[in-house]
Formats: sequence, C-alpha cells, structure tokens
Amino acid sequence: MHNFRGAHILSVDQFDRQDIGVLFGLAAEMEPFAQRRKLTRVLEGAVLGNFFFEPSTRSRVSFGAAFNRLGGSVRDTTGFQFSSMAKGESIYDTSRVVSGYVDVVVVRHPVEGSVAEFAAATRVPVINGGDGPGEHPTQAMLDLYTIQKELGRPRGELDGLEVAMVGDLKFGRTVHSLARLLSLYKNVRFVFIAPDALQMPEAIVERVRSRGHAVRQTGDLAEGVARADVIYSTRVQQERFTDAEEVEKYRGTFSIDQHFYERHCKPGAVLMHPLPRDSRPGANELDDDLNRNPALAIFRQTDNGIPVRMALFALVLGVEGEVRKTAREVSWFVPAKIGVDDV
Amino acid sequence: MHNFRGAHILSVDQFDRQDIGVLFGLAAEMEPFAQRRKLTRVLEGAVLGNFFFEPSTRSRVSFGAAFNRLGGSVRDTTGFQFSSMAKGESIYDTSRVVSGYVDVVVVRHPVEGSVAEFAAATRVPVINGGDGPGEHPTQAMLDLYTIQKELGRPRGELDGLEVAMVGDLKFGRTVHSLARLLSLYKNVRFVFIAPDALQMPEAIVERVRSRGHAVRQTGDLAEGVARADVIYSTRVQQERFTDAEEVEKYRGTFSIDQHFYERHCKPGAVLMHPLPRDSRPGANELDDDLNRNPALAIFRQTDNGIPVRMALFALVLGVEGEVRKTAREVSWFVPAKIGVDDV
Amino acid sequence: MHNFRGAHILSVDQFDRQDIGVLFGLAAEMEPFAQRRKLTRVLEGAVLGNFFFEPSTRSRVSFGAAFNRLGGSVRDTTGFQFSSMAKGESIYDTSRVVSGYVDVVVVRHPVEGSVAEFAAATRVPVINGGDGPGEHPTQAMLDLYTIQKELGRPRGELDGLEVAMVGDLKFGRTVHSLARLLSLYKNVRFVFIAPDALQMPEAIVERVRSRGHAVRQTGDLAEGVARADVIYSTRVQQERFTDAEEVEKYRGTFSIDQHFYERHCKPGAVLMHPLPRDSRPGANELDDDLNRNPALAIFRQTDNGIPVRMALFALVLGVEGEVRKTAREVSWFVPAKIGVDDV
Repeated sequence: MHNFRGAHILSVDQFDRQDIGVLFGLAAEMEPFAQRRKLTRVLEGAVLGNFFFEPSTRSRVSFGAAFNRLGGSVRDTTGFQFSSMAKGESIYDTSRVVSGYVDVVVVRHPVEGSVAEFAAATRVPVINGGDGPGEHPTQAMLDLYTIQKELGRPRGELDGLEVAMVGDLKFGRTVHSLARLLSLYKNVRFVFIAPDALQMPEAIVERVRSRGHAVRQTGDLAEGVARADVIYSTRVQQERFTDAEEVEKYRGTFSIDQHFYERHCKPGAVLMHPLPRDSRPGANELDDDLNRNPALAIFRQTDNGIPVRMALFALVLGVEGEVRKTAREVSWFVPAKIGVDDV
Repeated sequence: MHNFRGAHILSVDQFDRQDIGVLFGLAAEMEPFAQRRKLTRVLEGAVLGNFFFEPSTRSRVSFGAAFNRLGGSVRDTTGFQFSSMAKGESIYDTSRVVSGYVDVVVVRHPVEGSVAEFAAATRVPVINGGDGPGEHPTQAMLDLYTIQKELGRPRGELDGLEVAMVGDLKFGRTVHSLARLLSLYKNVRFVFIAPDALQMPEAIVERVRSRGHAVRQTGDLAEGVARADVIYSTRVQQERFTDAEEVEKYRGTFSIDQHFYERHCKPGAVLMHPLPRDSRPGANELDDDLNRNPALAIFRQTDNGIPVRMALFALVLGVEGEVRKTAREVSWFVPAKIGVDDV
Repeated sequence: MHNFRGAHILSVDQFDRQDIGVLFGLAAEMEPFAQRRKLTRVLEGAVLGNFFFEPSTRSRVSFGAAFNRLGGSVRDTTGFQFSSMAKGESIYDTSRVVSGYVDVVVVRHPVEGSVAEFAAATRVPVINGGDGPGEHPTQAMLDLYTIQKELGRPRGELDGLEVAMVGDLKFGRTVHSLARLLSLYKNVRFVFIAPDALQMPEAIVERVRSRGHAVRQTGDLAEGVARADVIYSTRVQQERFTDAEEVEKYRGTFSIDQHFYERHCKPGAVLMHPLPRDSRPGANELDDDLNRNPALAIFRQTDNGIPVRMALFALVLGVEGEVRKTAREVSWFVPAKIGVDDV
C-alpha cells in the first residue's frame, strides 16, 4: 500500500515488507507511550467507533485503550446484534450512518467479507477487527512484531526462520494470516503440526510453497518443534473432532508444558499463543507451569497489541509525524513490570 | 422556553420559532466541528450520562460522539434493564443517584412519560432520547434542520412548504413530533399518506389544522407526493396489519424507487427517513437504487444529528458563547466526503 | 497500609485509622471537583479498566465518572461473561492481559476471592468493586465518610457512636464491611436489628466485641433504633425466608417511614441505605415519604461515592499532591443543588 493515510485496513495481503517496516518502526516509537512512560494527546478531539457486532472483550479493549493512549475518545458498541441490523438495515446504511459520527472505525463482525462491505460505503478509514473465519489483520501484525522483538531481529530480518504452528490449523484464522505475512520474507521454514483432520488448508500451504518457503506437515509434536525458533500454539477444540474416540486420542497431545519444553524444544525457542489459552485440565494448550519460563512470550505478545494498534491508528489518520513532538512525561504511578512473573 | 441554560429537553412543545432559530443558528456554527475541520474542548472535564434503558445503538453513539466533539467524557449504559430498577428502585431514586455522577443526562426508556419522571427528580439537565411511543425531540429537531438546509431556507423560512409523510403515521413517533414542530410555521401543507389503519392520529390532524395549516389524507402514494417539497418516509411494519390479506395488499405499496421518483415526484423533492431503513425485498421503504439520487437526504439527515445535538448540549450547559473562541484546527486525516456516493 | 501508591485495594481490613484519615482528608479536597465547581486533568492520558463481570450499573458509572473527573479515560466491560473466561481462560491470564492495556483496574466479579486472584497476577493497582458475598470496600469507605460528614465529625472522631444496622444482616456484604471499619474506632455501640434467621454472622459479632465495642441484637425495630445516631437500613429479600408464613410475618416489619421516624427515632438520627431501595408496596425499606426529611442521607451518601473514589484513585496512582495545583474553574452550567428535594 505504501500510503496508510486514509486507507482501510482489511487484509494482511495489503502489506509488503516495506509497509511492515514502516508500521513496526512506528510501533517501536510507540512503546514508551504503550508502557506509560510518556503520553501524547495527538488525537485529542478525534473519536473512534469501536463497533463489535460479536463479543471480543480483549480485542475491543485493546483497540480502545490504544486510541485513548493517542488522546482520542472511544464510542463502543458490543453484543451480537446491532439493533438496526435486526430491522433489515443493510451494512451499507449502517456504515454510512456511523461513519458520519466518528473519525475511524474498527469493525468486528461474525460474517466473512462483511467488514470489506462496511468499508465500501465510506471514506472514513475502516480497520478489520476480525470478520468471522476471514481475517484479523492486526492480530497477525502484532504476532509478527512479537517474533521480531523476541528474536532481536528488527524490521524484516526474519529470513531463514523456522516457525512451528501447532493445534487447529484448519479453522484458526490467526495462523492463516500469520503464515501469509511470514511468507513475505525469505527461506522461512514452516512446520504445521496438527491432527490430519485439522491440518493447514491446502491453499495456504500452496501459497507459502509458491513463494519459495519450505513446508513440513506432521502430527507429531515432539518431532515437529525440535528445531523451531518460534512455536505458535493454538487451541484444538474437542468439538472439532467427529467421533469421541478421536477426542480421547488427542486429549492433551498438543499440550506443551515445562517438562516437554526442556526435553524437546530448542533452548530459548519462543512460545506464542493468540490467547485466550484454555487452562482447564486436559486442554491442548500451553501449560500454566510455563509462566515462569522466560521464553513464554504470550503476555508480551498481547502487550504488543497496544503499540502496534497505536501505530496503525497514527498512520491511517496521518499523525505519525506528530506523536514524538507532542510527547509529555507521565506523572502517575507506573509499575516497573506489569505482571508478577515478568522477567 | 427562550432560555435553554439548565433546562430539561423533554418535548418539541417546549419550543417556539425563536427557540428553533437560536438552536439552528448554533447548529450551523457547529458544522465545522461535526465535520472535523475544527475541534473544541469547551466541555473538557464534563461528563454525559448516556443512559439507554432500551437498545438504540445509532442514537446512543450520536449523542455520545456529539458530546465528545465538545471535549466531554461519556458514561454509557445499555440494555433492557437497569439492574437496580429490576430490584424495585423507583425512577426517582435512579435519577437522583445518577445525576450525582454526571453533568447532563440523556435518557432513552421504553415507557412513555418515564423521562419526564426522571427529569422531575433532578436539576441536572435531562434530555429525552426517546420514551417509547412518546417523544424523541432531538430526532424532530434534526429533521427540521435537515429540511431547512436541503431547501436552502435557513432559520424559520419554512412558511408555505408542502410536506408528505408516508407510511406508518399511527405509531411513528418521529412523524408526530415533526408535524408538531412544522406547525410552528405558516401555511404548511401536510399530506398524510398511509393505509387507513395506520393514518395520522386525529389529535395531531386537529392540532395542525387548528394552527391554520392544510391537511390532506390519502392512501395513494403517487397522488399524495405529486407536489411535495419534502417526502418523509417511515417504515410500515407488516405486523401492524390485522390480517394476512391486508399485508399482501400493501406489500411494497409505499416503497419509493428511482423509477417512481422520476415519474411521480416534483424534481428535487427531498427524500427523508428517520432510519434504519429496511433494505430487504418487499419492504415499504426508500429503495437502495436511490442512493445516487442527490435528493436522497437520509445520510445528510443522520449526519445533521451531530451539530444539532452539539448545539443542544452547548445551550443547556450554557457554553454556547465559548465554542467559537476555543476552536482549533484538526490535524488528522479527514475525508473530503464521508460516503462513497456523497454528492 | 500507610502507603497507597501502587497498592491493590481488596478489603477494608487493609486500613487503620490513620489510613482512613488520609483517604477522607483527600476526599474532602475532592468535593469541589465532585460537585463540578472545579476541574482537574491530573490523570489526562491515564486509562481505567472498569471491568464488571456481573452487572452493577450504579457502581460502574460511579467509578467511571470519578476517573473522568480526574481527567482519565475509561474502558468499560459489562455483562455476566467475559467471553474469554467462557473458553477456559484463567483469572490469572485475564488479569495479566488487561493490565497490559490500562493503568488501574476496578473488578466486580460474582465469586468471592476472585478479585484477589486477579490482583495476584499484576502490579497494576486493582480495586475490588465487589466480589460476590465477599467485600465491596469502597462502599464501606463512602458509608463511613458519610457518617462522619452527616454527624459533623471529621477524621476519626467516631468514638462513642451508636449505630443501628437493620434488615438482612446475614447476607448483606455492606453491613459486614461497615461493621469492620467502624470497629477501628472506640466504644462504638452496635445494634443489629434483624429477624433471627437473618442476624449478623457470629464471626463479625465476635470480632466487634473483641475490639471492646458493645453489641446488642434484637428483632424489634422500634426498640432497636431508639438511641441510634445512625440507622443503616438494608433490604430484606422475602426469598430469604424458608416458609411463606414467615414472609407474611415480616412484611413491612423493618420499614421506616416518616411517622415511625418521628415516633421512635432520636431527632436528627441519620438514615442511610446502600441503595437501591425497593419502593414497591410492602417492601422492608426506607419509605419514599422520607424524601423531604433532612436526616435522609441516602442521596448524599451515593454522591459521596465520587469524592471517595476520586481520592482512592489519586492515592493509588500517586497524584494526590497534584490535584489542587492543577485545579481550574468550571465554566458550564452546574445546578446549586442536584436534586429537587435536596436540603
């Protein structure tokens, strides 16, 4: 795209390596603001329409807080139904109406393609906050930003990386988008670890391969993660399996705990997860006993959502050059570390 | 009323032509702020209680965004139930409690008269955001403001206008309030177009006539709109009819599309609608194919909600003289036109 | 605690008389801001996470408005379910995630102990907004602040007071916390007035007695309130009784109206209630006919929630010394009294 100003942000496919470089360079500038060392009021007077037509408290609060950190105000909607839509209002009308009220819109909607339809009705920038099985581009951006930071490889030096994706790769929208973003780099080695029934869709495998990347697919977690620099875990929901026997067969099979990590993973291999993680017994997830493992990046990952979303808002509203100039010191209490286990 | 400062805004009957002139004069001053060319922080530190005891995302966001544009903060409540009311709390108590928290209150409530009851408990200004079948005065104000702007007749020069109201005139609270406001002017010609079962209540017809206006009632859309300067369409809900046969008889009968407009309407006749409009097939509404017709004012109409509500907030809070003095330029991206079809 | 900066506020047991003195001294300084005579923007740029996992519109708006009055922004969540928790996310993970977004968190949660669990995961200050049958410490603080103000006894001069608590003392979390706070003072005389089945838990009676206070328990309202300086009424929910006969026996038995007040209460005895009060006929509550009795403190009590919560936010965020310095005059309309019956 090369020019974010006034653009709709609908899909990771809009971005090339240069765009990612611009976004991540600005996100790095935003970190002191996200960490509440500095504050800016550069968007004072601007209003975000934070419209969640399906519930997602985490994403909604992350977008809203990021906008507040730039000085703007937020108008939220939540819940399954936009009351007008229930009365037969088209997405076109809904979009045209609300874009008359606000300066930028984040839309989360259960139907794939609906956010693009929303964007087609207005020139106010629209950001896709997740459209059902479609895309959730800001999640993929913060995932990629996290990988770069955790590995100490700023701005596009991800060439040659080995990334293992684990769990439900068939329905997991985040792994689809992240795989597409990673394929912008060179010689990435992908390992897709999943039961056969939940393997990565062939279209994405083809696409990644066609860009010259190596792809390996396996159902064996220990074998799959052995040389990975990054292990990206996602939930395997038991209801995805067609029969009860298979559920039992896979119970806990894709779970990583500290013992497994020490035995099978490359030292320092970065552990990621889009969250929420299921902490109930028998879940196919990252175990709570990893909380003190410094390689567990899941909370730094969610924290990164703020600077990445701040950078995106600043770019689409064209104020990226003003943020540094308007910076002030924060005078209220800010803990040196956010979490009790932060290392 | 002549003095908005500290007043409750409960009914269109509080206003005379001079009041409307004051309000609309200030609303015109607010347009550069509503269109995000300028910003003001005149209400910085003030808090709006935006209390919607029945869902109405559109109105709630419009009031909230208007208050944000003046620099104030907004505390929202949504949903069918105010949890305390379910425990037997009186409206008096609820009002007294929440008016201790905020500077001005917007109340939407399903029961007619409840907002007046709310206002009776407090000296903090209360604005009626719609009380069931009762009133929704700010909708009527923005409708009237739209008519004046669309016809190029600023401040009270609506004398001699012909206005057609179409659809469900019996239960449609917006047409009742608009008819009452329009009757402040001289020699307005009203055409009420509806099936017999949904015609304008006799009380409103009498009132309009008693002020010297001409009223014509018909069930024939083409005949009714022929000389209208403004056509105000509202939804005919099929469940209003008592038998299925009648539903079929009227299906689409009050729908206006581009072909109908060209054939039957006065050139340039302004098309309005309180929204949401039903865009499903067979609806008795304004057809989507009118979206490129410059006379379709429905989106400009909803946009006008922002300057009108900003003006009302500024007047009841007594800061109307400060807005211009505190104006600053907006530095973020603002599209020249909001919608893709805006003309 | 002696040092509020960065502290979690989970229980009234964290406070001694000196802490209460510090808090109430600052709350008194906050009154001109709460009453909208002055404004401050000392927390401009800060964000409150106002997370209500169970509905409580009143408390949520009170916390949010208090934070707005300090200049901060608020991100709200409401409703029974935090969507991620329904997917098996631990409170630890939820807390760690959202504390990455905001500067201070208020949590309301239906499960006792859950707010402490929330606090254990983060160094961002967490304030208990009510955890089921557990605590609601800011309610007890504003109750105590109200008692001091109403009786003209600033900062810790409550020694020798007689306080009657009436109604459901078994399940009423507010009376438990208030009794514990009051027991910090000397020679308080407690009268616990309730049906046997709903009397104060023995643990609290013991605790109060062990600190040297007199406790009297009775089922007779008239006898119980006779010498009380403060009468704190709470709801008796009829569903608490095991059989219908008992319901009838107690219907209205703990209701105080103007006639009862004149006949049985000490002149000027302060009437309090945590609200909401049930105004339906037959309720065991404070009657509406007391609304013009100057001793009815229930609305001043809820109003006091704002300065007390402002003071608490200022203390935990360490900006208490900046508020006065940053004060500005309010320029918008503010009524001399909030309610129509205010005396």
